[in-house]
Amino acid sequence: MMQTQLNLTTMVKHAEKYFADKTVISRTLSGVHTIPYSKITERIHRLAGALKSLGVGKGDRVGTIAWNHHRHLEAYFAIPTMGAVLHTINIRVSPDDLAYIINHAEDKVLLVDEDLFPLIERVKDQITDVEKIIVMTDKEELPETSLTNIASYESLLEEADPDTELDDAIDENTIAGLCYTSGTTGRPKGVAYSHRGIYLHSLALGLKDTVGLSEEDIAMPIVPMFHVNAWGMPFAALWFGTTQVLPGPMPTPQILAELVEDYKVTMAAGVPTIWMGFLQALEQGNYDTSSLRCILCGGSAAPKGMIRTFESTYHIPFVHAYGMTETSPIVTLARLKSYQQELDEEERLELRSRQGMVVPGIEIRGINEHGDIPHDGNTIGELLVRGPWIADAYYKNDRSEESFRDGWLHTGDVVNIDEEGSVKIVDRTKDMIKSGGEWISSVDIENALMAHEAVFEASVIAVPDPKWQERPVACVVLKEKKTLTEEEVKEFLTPQFAKYWIPDRVLFMEEIPKTSVGKFLKRALRDQVEEMLSLSDSSS
Amino acid sequence: MMQTQLNLTTMVKHAEKYFADKTVISRTLSGVHTIPYSKITERIHRLAGALKSLGVGKGDRVGTIAWNHHRHLEAYFAIPTMGAVLHTINIRVSPDDLAYIINHAEDKVLLVDEDLFPLIERVKDQITDVEKIIVMTDKEELPETSLTNIASYESLLEEADPDTELDDAIDENTIAGLCYTSGTTGRPKGVAYSHRGIYLHSLALGLKDTVGLSEEDIAMPIVPMFHVNAWGMPFAALWFGTTQVLPGPMPTPQILAELVEDYKVTMAAGVPTIWMGFLQALEQGNYDTSSLRCILCGGSAAPKGMIRTFESTYHIPFVHAYGMTETSPIVTLARLKSYQQELDEEERLELRSRQGMVVPGIEIRGINEHGDIPHDGNTIGELLVRGPWIADAYYKNDRSEESFRDGWLHTGDVVNIDEEGSVKIVDRTKDMIKSGGEWISSVDIENALMAHEAVFEASVIAVPDPKWQERPVACVVLKEKKTLTEEEVKEFLTPQFAKYWIPDRVLFMEEIPKTSVGKFLKRALRDQVEEMLSLSDSSS
Repeated sequence: MMQTQLNLTTMVKHAEKYFADKTVISRTLSGVHTIPYSKITERIHRLAGALKSLGVGKGDRVGTIAWNHHRHLEAYFAIPTMGAVLHTINIRVSPDDLAYIINHAEDKVLLVDEDLFPLIERVKDQITDVEKIIVMTDKEELPETSLTNIASYESLLEEADPDTELDDAIDENTIAGLCYTSGTTGRPKGVAYSHRGIYLHSLALGLKDTVGLSEEDIAMPIVPMFHVNAWGMPFAALWFGTTQVLPGPMPTPQILAELVEDYKVTMAAGVPTIWMGFLQALEQGNYDTSSLRCILCGGSAAPKGMIRTFESTYHIPFVHAYGMTETSPIVTLARLKSYQQELDEEERLELRSRQGMVVPGIEIRGINEHGDIPHDGNTIGELLVRGPWIADAYYKNDRSEESFRDGWLHTGDVVNIDEEGSVKIVDRTKDMIKSGGEWISSVDIENALMAHEAVFEASVIAVPDPKWQERPVACVVLKEKKTLTEEEVKEFLTPQFAKYWIPDRVLFMEEIPKTSVGKFLKRALRDQVEEMLSLSDSSS
Repeated sequence: MMQTQLNLTTMVKHAEKYFADKTVISRTLSGVHTIPYSKITERIHRLAGALKSLGVGKGDRVGTIAWNHHRHLEAYFAIPTMGAVLHTINIRVSPDDLAYIINHAEDKVLLVDEDLFPLIERVKDQITDVEKIIVMTDKEELPETSLTNIASYESLLEEADPDTELDDAIDENTIAGLCYTSGTTGRPKGVAYSHRGIYLHSLALGLKDTVGLSEEDIAMPIVPMFHVNAWGMPFAALWFGTTQVLPGPMPTPQILAELVEDYKVTMAAGVPTIWMGFLQALEQGNYDTSSLRCILCGGSAAPKGMIRTFESTYHIPFVHAYGMTETSPIVTLARLKSYQQELDEEERLELRSRQGMVVPGIEIRGINEHGDIPHDGNTIGELLVRGPWIADAYYKNDRSEESFRDGWLHTGDVVNIDEEGSVKIVDRTKDMIKSGGEWISSVDIENALMAHEAVFEASVIAVPDPKWQERPVACVVLKEKKTLTEEEVKEFLTPQFAKYWIPDRVLFMEEIPKTSVGKFLKRALRDQVEEMLSLSDSSS
């Protein structure tokens, strides 16, 4: 067979030739713009030319600090197809981490959104390798700034050669992308994505049995383009000629619901917190969401109650998936096998609230101290993952060996696997609660709590206990205008769990601390709970 | 990213772990058998063990002379996953070519169907490297034969180790399969398929925008497993857990229609001649074909009239695709873009009778003497193809350079490409008719003829002409009990074509000679026509 390379240049060229008239709908600060792929691909050529003229060469890192919009999409393809590395930077990390990430990646050029410019100004004295900062704005003028090495994205494109060649011979193992995980401990760690990994992951997204991303879709990645490449959707969508709706800066649930209605979005992807907010918007407004054939949800476990509400109240099919920054991200997806369609509604919901089946191309194992766990839906073990779009190390980082051992990624997620091969995340290895020698899943209790009609969100953590080693404590945020007592919460949980699973304490809070990508930050929560409990102890 | 190999072992393991309860429905000489994938994968391990014990090692070729059934499917995976080469042999070639193919491939072992055993007995004195012939039969006894080096497939499997390991470290560029094209000139030429090529081609078949092969499907490859791996369907189907219906020895249209009805087949794949026969069966019988979501048709152009009949009379969606042995085979597939769905029925049918859009991963060009042809739906040129599942040479053959030049496969097919990128095969380069300096497409006239209600099939060839260089002659086979005169045929064509396109002569025949895979054999037809014309000249 021909040794053609599995690279992003093939993907751009396909879109350029065959989907010139399909569109990208891009929300920027100046409004919502509909831009044909013919224009997007022309601008990809121009951006590649502009970056070359700034001295960006093969292997150089180009950082982006940007929302989901068409310029970011152009960067997604222009940077890798000139042989450079697209480094998407999480806008929600601390200034210290931001400087660390930029310096660790040795970014040579940064592409920064106008409204995110303050982030980079704040750390300007800390960053070491950046030679040029390109401002992405609809306006004629650049923002006022003390930075001197800035340029306008649009001016650069205007001057650049629209016929700049994209390199179609790029070796498929070349790094195309770089994304730092917002880990809950230590400095962020970089994950490098190869052209080959992105290409294969894109094919996986197009499979009918996974996401089935199609030319017919109008896809809205809500998950940020600075977070695991918006789950790889912009790559696959451009390749397949899918219409993309990119929701731009600070998309509120209302804005998202309007975009769905106005542009007849057929599939949208985001983390559970996004969908919780979206549900509230649907409750308050009167939006037509009938175009949605699929909501894709991952990043952390979606409560069963939420899945039920989307499907029975709003008739929006809800698809649960699992992955992480290290896995590009898709690893599993909860679809039913054909013969499982015959189960009753409750059983189907139960199965679909699991993380689901591993997608073709990826291999998984669950291991505990005895070896591989049986597929019995009960025994728990850590999830290991292997495959051509799974990272094999952190980027220039000696801590890689903790996670990458014996050819497998050790995810740190505790799972069981049922007879059909469907995975359920029970907890993070670090968040499991061991009480009296027995394991308690914090995630299971959290999901039960979040199914209560008065609960907005809930998180369960372990606190040290002299007798039982650890005991669960529940932290609950109530919905507006709702009340609930500690006793009522315990009574609600009692019929659902073994007695020793019921949290000893229920603490009501205004908010649960979260990571920059919306996951519960249990480390911070533990500190907070420790403080609350010691205060309540000392006051009692 | 991890350097895991894109090989068939991953695919088998996936099916083994996750689709144990899905089934293969296999028609053999003893009847129709429903076999779970758990059994199929166990037998794949056993077959690999059995072949090892016969001395088959990495790189050795193992030939199959077999229909579409479960044993052939087992061979499809057992042979490549032990590092050997699956050589599928066309049962319809001449004895001479059969011996040539076996010797050229240096097959060490052959797997032969009981009822096809006479084929190999006939050439037993010509074959040079075969050490063992394994007979695939449901019976206890082996056929009576003068051959001494034979063994029973089932006995070998019974004795073999069900825990024989499949090699999951096989380099993806290793040859997995070998198939000889039944060319119309010269000796058959071998095409070698790599693990990587088959893996990627399988993913392409699963894309929602191509065939969308799914776990939910009940797929029936009618195209023989000895012809381009039944278009790669058995590979993809096992990986995705698709139920497979393998129609076994000598499947008549009636048998196929019964299988569709009995097993609720959702998609079936075959060449136009198969579908012509199938249509006749549907006309004569009363079959329930409502389960069919898709008929996949390729190998040669399907007449528009046939597509229309399937869709309007039987409500069976008909999907036209294009490929060849050298291309694994899928290159293009006729699906409409979302905005083309708004066209009227006739326009949609016209588009869907083209060979369609190139699938993601493959690149195409049309070239003529001026370079790349414009995408205007009019200018014609030869189709060139490139991509990771396209062959780069014929197997151990010095004639490779004719077809593989400058990194592209030169298909020998003449096409035009429309504004949307959809390809239409106009002719074979060798079958185009040049009359008075203008090109005439034999395929276009053939399709027009086959749309006539009295015509069963038709083929158009060039005959030398002293004045015009070449002139078209039409060869027509009438449907049973239908009559038609030469003049009537010409009158029928006149409104559809320029005057110089109308064939000078219309010859009525009993049958049009075909290649072993059902394509018109124009070389033989030319000889026949030459004879007929000289007879009619001398008699006039």
